[in-house]
Amino acid sequence: MGKVLEIEAFGLAAKDESGVLSPFRFSRRKTGEKDVRFKVLFCGICHTDVCMAKNEWGFTTYPLVPGHEIVGVVTEVGAKVTKYKAGDKVGVVGYMVSSCRSCDICNDDQENYCPEMIITSGGKYYDDTMTYGGYSDHMVCEEDYIIHIPENLPLDAAAPLLCAGVTVYSPMKYHGLDKPGMHIGVVGLGGLGHVAVKFAKAMGTKVTVISTSDRKRDEAISRLGADLFLVSHDPEQMKEAIGTMDGIIDTVSATHPLLPILGLLKYKGKLIMVGAPNKPLELPVLPLILGKKMVVGSMTGGIKGTQEMVDLAGKHNITADIELISADYVNTAMERLEKGDVRYRFVIDVGNTMKPTPYYKA
Amino acid sequence: MGKVLEIEAFGLAAKDESGVLSPFRFSRRKTGEKDVRFKVLFCGICHTDVCMAKNEWGFTTYPLVPGHEIVGVVTEVGAKVTKYKAGDKVGVVGYMVSSCRSCDICNDDQENYCPEMIITSGGKYYDDTMTYGGYSDHMVCEEDYIIHIPENLPLDAAAPLLCAGVTVYSPMKYHGLDKPGMHIGVVGLGGLGHVAVKFAKAMGTKVTVISTSDRKRDEAISRLGADLFLVSHDPEQMKEAIGTMDGIIDTVSATHPLLPILGLLKYKGKLIMVGAPNKPLELPVLPLILGKKMVVGSMTGGIKGTQEMVDLAGKHNITADIELISADYVNTAMERLEKGDVRYRFVIDVGNTMKPTPYYKA
Repeated sequence: MGKVLEIEAFGLAAKDESGVLSPFRFSRRKTGEKDVRFKVLFCGICHTDVCMAKNEWGFTTYPLVPGHEIVGVVTEVGAKVTKYKAGDKVGVVGYMVSSCRSCDICNDDQENYCPEMIITSGGKYYDDTMTYGGYSDHMVCEEDYIIHIPENLPLDAAAPLLCAGVTVYSPMKYHGLDKPGMHIGVVGLGGLGHVAVKFAKAMGTKVTVISTSDRKRDEAISRLGADLFLVSHDPEQMKEAIGTMDGIIDTVSATHPLLPILGLLKYKGKLIMVGAPNKPLELPVLPLILGKKMVVGSMTGGIKGTQEMVDLAGKHNITADIELISADYVNTAMERLEKGDVRYRFVIDVGNTMKPTPYYKA
Repeated sequence: MGKVLEIEAFGLAAKDESGVLSPFRFSRRKTGEKDVRFKVLFCGICHTDVCMAKNEWGFTTYPLVPGHEIVGVVTEVGAKVTKYKAGDKVGVVGYMVSSCRSCDICNDDQENYCPEMIITSGGKYYDDTMTYGGYSDHMVCEEDYIIHIPENLPLDAAAPLLCAGVTVYSPMKYHGLDKPGMHIGVVGLGGLGHVAVKFAKAMGTKVTVISTSDRKRDEAISRLGADLFLVSHDPEQMKEAIGTMDGIIDTVSATHPLLPILGLLKYKGKLIMVGAPNKPLELPVLPLILGKKMVVGSMTGGIKGTQEMVDLAGKHNITADIELISADYVNTAMERLEKGDVRYRFVIDVGNTMKPTPYYKA
């Protein structure tokens, strides 16, 4: 694609490895034939946004406008767009705004793993411009990477589904852990874990939350609807649950022991890692061999899976539990997120609070 | 089953945790209606035999007659046996002489994982007697747990297929790594690894051996038929092979790093652990997540898979590379095996060298 006329945009960007966000004026491409342009109303704050803002993985290009849990309302569509029209409630399919659409991986509906996938924030688009994320007034995105948000879902609490939601939904579906009657474990009750409980219940499975302390027991059972709650440091509780689970979604990104978790799995049970600890975890091999068990990683989801996920969320009224914040609270929110001080997801009220002034002076 | 009349047998048994084997006279049950009785001709020495003889896993009952890679010739069959007759060349289906035959796992042809599976040596049979393995003059075994050995295979070198062979064949088959054109890695070139190379080639895959040093390169390529050889400690060699393999069979039971091995796998690649290190391995989680990769354990194989494996071996003339020893060399062989000093499997010439005298005096 050649360079197209640009349209002014504004948002919040990290300018260096401090990760501190400040006002930023930039431009986005004009609406192309197959593009959807939309006003951003809400954007979730994912832990990945913090890592990217601080260049923790070493490939951040500044300025970086974070944000990939983006929902809003369509303002303009290109001439060849068929699935969306102005006024539609939409989101971006997570941390991806394009992919090659022709490789085996794309053909397998796993575009999020395509080697040529372009990330929503901090990636390089075909016209050599950087991609800027959803901490901004509006987005423009190829139609194929846009998702319909069901009418009945509140847009603010739906935003985190586009990353947190699909991250837990996708592997449950892919690995056949979505069958009624199955027993699913969820390790860690945070941004990912609380949505995992909701989806697993919607799929008709029995759900057990595994946490390091008893603190979240009531929350897990009374409010989120989990069937059981296990304290991982209590050997008696863990012992009773040995060999009972078909699959476990491990959402914890801190270092933690896998041996007791593997013990909870049945024969051929699947431990799905969606949190990414910085340091390697200790993997005991004998339990894998004796139980034909597997440990498998999973990252977000593809286009088709993401639409399926929000459709299921619409059917069961699933959203994330959020703390809605204004744009000027973002830096504080990121600090709190790093300490785990959020129940369970911050969402920026972009539509009402992201203004070109007073942040920006020409 | 009630206790049945007994028949005298003799063999070699460990009597205590020294693991030293010495002559042992015992009895086996009379041939039941569905039993096959056979003269043992050859029995492989697997590392598990050493672990069991020394009670390394804590559940050994002495005296222990080891041996689960057992082949021989049928001498008598029970009245209701339909698949075997006197003179047939047979083996026992690895480390298993019975299972419940009714659970989901047995119905899934994975009897080796049945919770009621009875091990070939050191297990407790239905009549409350201990099971004694193949370091002995003859065996009696239920028909369903007996395997036909193809006529064209030499029985001595075929014996290790019944454990080493099926241990590597079974997961390749189960996880779909048996498709021509796939690229399979084999980590470690020992008793399991050298058979893995042969089966993977017979399946039509491209095979790369990954080893800690260059020492076995010629052996791997010129004699075993591997396509490529990688030295795991050579970052340049490993780098060139990044992301090229569909699956890897890891046969190493010493502690070793998984990060470089996981790097060799393609998207959705499978690392299959068949060696069982005593200590946990370090598992880096991010490569699993970014590549949708899995680490999965596998242990031996079921009845159907074991028969399929030896049939494929017959078709392609696959046997283990062995060092044939006499019965009085067993203790030395076990010492050498613990040091890895064998290319690649010891097999006891039971038929010709296991005698009731001079070992035994009444």
